[in-house]
Amino acid sequence: METIVIVGYVAGALTTISFVPQVVKAWKMRETRDLSLAMLVLFAIGVILWTLYGIWVGSLPIIAANVITFALILVLLGLKLWYK
Amino acid sequence: METIVIVGYVAGALTTISFVPQVVKAWKMRETRDLSLAMLVLFAIGVILWTLYGIWVGSLPIIAANVITFALILVLLGLKLWYK
Repeated sequence: METIVIVGYVAGALTTISFVPQVVKAWKMRETRDLSLAMLVLFAIGVILWTLYGIWVGSLPIIAANVITFALILVLLGLKLWYK
Repeated sequence: METIVIVGYVAGALTTISFVPQVVKAWKMRETRDLSLAMLVLFAIGVILWTLYGIWVGSLPIIAANVITFALILVLLGLKLWYK
């Protein structure tokens, strides 16, 4: 596998799993006041479009990264709306 | 321009500008306690790698989106460390 493909996979993995500590923090602290609802909504729409893009160009890494990110953002949105 | 290229541009724009409302909120409220430092650091590293990936494959949209995102994340990191 080419180096640059690995760089792409690692980049995608990092920008995806980066939301895990944010979900854990919001879950544990039951506090999401400082999180921007607008950010979460815009990011969610962007990630949906990235998923469509990945399906269209047939790129499994793009699809996988963005489906996982979307799931994490959805949890954050839920926590944000629940704890307001 | 092909539809899917436009979808890619819009997706990149959304996942980039989504950080603007978060920066504005943190700046106005002077509060970042609920933001996860780990998320910001992981996301920053991921975005640096995406920028390298964009340079390598010669994709201006990937470079532009990730350089702007990196700048916004850097501001958030600064605010996070400042307001702790």
